[in-house]
Amino acid sequence: MLKFDAEKFVTEGEKAYSLRADIEQIALKVQKEGISNIFFTASGGSNAVMQPFNYWMESKSSIPSYLLTAADFLAVGSKKLNKNSIVILLSKSGDTKETVALAKKMEQLGIRTISIVNKDNTPLAHHSTYAVNTFGYHPQELAFYFLIGKIMQVNNEFNDYEQFADELKSLPGDMNIVAQEVDSKAKEFAEKYQNADYQIWVGSGDLWGTTYSYSMCVLEESQWLRTKSVSSPEFFHGTFELVEKDVPVVLLESEGATRPLDERVANFATKYTDQFTKFDMKEFTLSHISTKFRPIVEPSVMWAALRRVSLHLEDIRDHPLTKRRYYRVVDY
Amino acid sequence: MLKFDAEKFVTEGEKAYSLRADIEQIALKVQKEGISNIFFTASGGSNAVMQPFNYWMESKSSIPSYLLTAADFLAVGSKKLNKNSIVILLSKSGDTKETVALAKKMEQLGIRTISIVNKDNTPLAHHSTYAVNTFGYHPQELAFYFLIGKIMQVNNEFNDYEQFADELKSLPGDMNIVAQEVDSKAKEFAEKYQNADYQIWVGSGDLWGTTYSYSMCVLEESQWLRTKSVSSPEFFHGTFELVEKDVPVVLLESEGATRPLDERVANFATKYTDQFTKFDMKEFTLSHISTKFRPIVEPSVMWAALRRVSLHLEDIRDHPLTKRRYYRVVDY
Repeated sequence: MLKFDAEKFVTEGEKAYSLRADIEQIALKVQKEGISNIFFTASGGSNAVMQPFNYWMESKSSIPSYLLTAADFLAVGSKKLNKNSIVILLSKSGDTKETVALAKKMEQLGIRTISIVNKDNTPLAHHSTYAVNTFGYHPQELAFYFLIGKIMQVNNEFNDYEQFADELKSLPGDMNIVAQEVDSKAKEFAEKYQNADYQIWVGSGDLWGTTYSYSMCVLEESQWLRTKSVSSPEFFHGTFELVEKDVPVVLLESEGATRPLDERVANFATKYTDQFTKFDMKEFTLSHISTKFRPIVEPSVMWAALRRVSLHLEDIRDHPLTKRRYYRVVDY
Repeated sequence: MLKFDAEKFVTEGEKAYSLRADIEQIALKVQKEGISNIFFTASGGSNAVMQPFNYWMESKSSIPSYLLTAADFLAVGSKKLNKNSIVILLSKSGDTKETVALAKKMEQLGIRTISIVNKDNTPLAHHSTYAVNTFGYHPQELAFYFLIGKIMQVNNEFNDYEQFADELKSLPGDMNIVAQEVDSKAKEFAEKYQNADYQIWVGSGDLWGTTYSYSMCVLEESQWLRTKSVSSPEFFHGTFELVEKDVPVVLLESEGATRPLDERVANFATKYTDQFTKFDMKEFTLSHISTKFRPIVEPSVMWAALRRVSLHLEDIRDHPLTKRRYYRVVDY
């Protein structure tokens, strides 16, 4: 299978998993000190990684939470920010300009920050109250499962946390199986739409962040393909009028509470375009994850599936995923 | 000027303004009973109308607020919903399926709802604790200025409210001036991009809702033109890689706290495409609105400007703004 190293993925996953105790300690410490609210903040794809966690807290936690881009948060501020706030920051490089500036601002204000980075000795870690280096290993959501899951457990909002966290140990292996299951479909998709002049990507709930970031940070940023991403309920309030016989529509179908909203999109798209594709969570085998936890791990699992599309696009189009016209190439 | 009736617009604006006392009474009543948090919820364009008010509260109010699509809210629920919550609903028709269903659910739960509709005797009004009929008169944000402004005033977060609300009396007249100021530019834009195969729309802060909804609910839904909307800070985390010499980029430039983020987009786009247009709030005359209030009225004012683009598109393309392929035409 193209650029697929199952063993390495599992080994790296184990290293990421080994951070569990440290991250849970951070969760326990901030919880004990008191949490008035939580701000998830980053830029671009990193913000999208945190979307499901804000969504999770919005629906299941009594702790108010907010998802903001770092640049907005810096420019506008928030009246809700106070001494008991927690600001959670994510930056793979650990040096994203606005994210570091925000950490510095929180440092000055005496507000606790928890940063997730992929490297040692980053400016972001340096200016954060707590910093976790996940080395860029997958699933990239793992640190958040431990952090937010533990906070919600202590807050009596996730009593199954220990079982969930135990099962996560097997998630990288299960993600490998999903990658293998989906690979031929991913290749076919990449071949078919390698030169599409426009694609509509739709998703909801736990998968909205994935829908938004896959279209923007992979198809647009790294393949220079034009997309429109829209959430499943919003699809019917504008974008669906663009659907015609030849218009590609892609649905990332959730197994969570918003599945009926996704199904409505699938029914519509099946009827009005012959270029409809769905990647359905229900079709993926996850041998080690209990049914009740499947919606929570959707972002990781869907990443594993879509990663196959990315690798085939890169290969078929001879367009490296790392190729940029502007990002960190020119000044702006 | 094409389809422009300045007098009618002002007369209707006066009727909308006459609701001020009633709306302030609702604000005072719910404030007195207690407000634990506020949920803004609707679908599509109506949700986008409320975006600036959630944004305003996020930055300036200690009251937690959330902006959710009605379908999501129905499917997923929220742990933050409690007896002191206020759910604010907007539906022009007053019969949008999910919005009405949500009002009914709140009715059962005994949670207060405030609905804004454009008609008398709607199902939404029938199932709401409070309902305001604004007749569809503009500015459509007016009811929210009174409602949210008053709530924030009582909460000591908007001490200038009375002055602001007094000045709003002249806003429809000022919007007419803006419409006249921008009309030739709007016509030129409509002529130039009437057949554009793709456009990138960018905006931030108070104007993000406008950016999102103008591209989705006008260009996509009512003109069947392909767009991508992205916020100014997020533009640099993906979409900007698609910018080339011939790619249309449109910026709705704010006068609020996020203006520097917009300026960064303008600088970039000016350099890398020759198809860059901006509609800049700073260029509009608003004789009766104090400088300090200009950012707050941006959504209304930008609507007045973009309405000119819509009317010229409809005219030039011979494609009525009311024409639909699917919405309320077929079942889905």
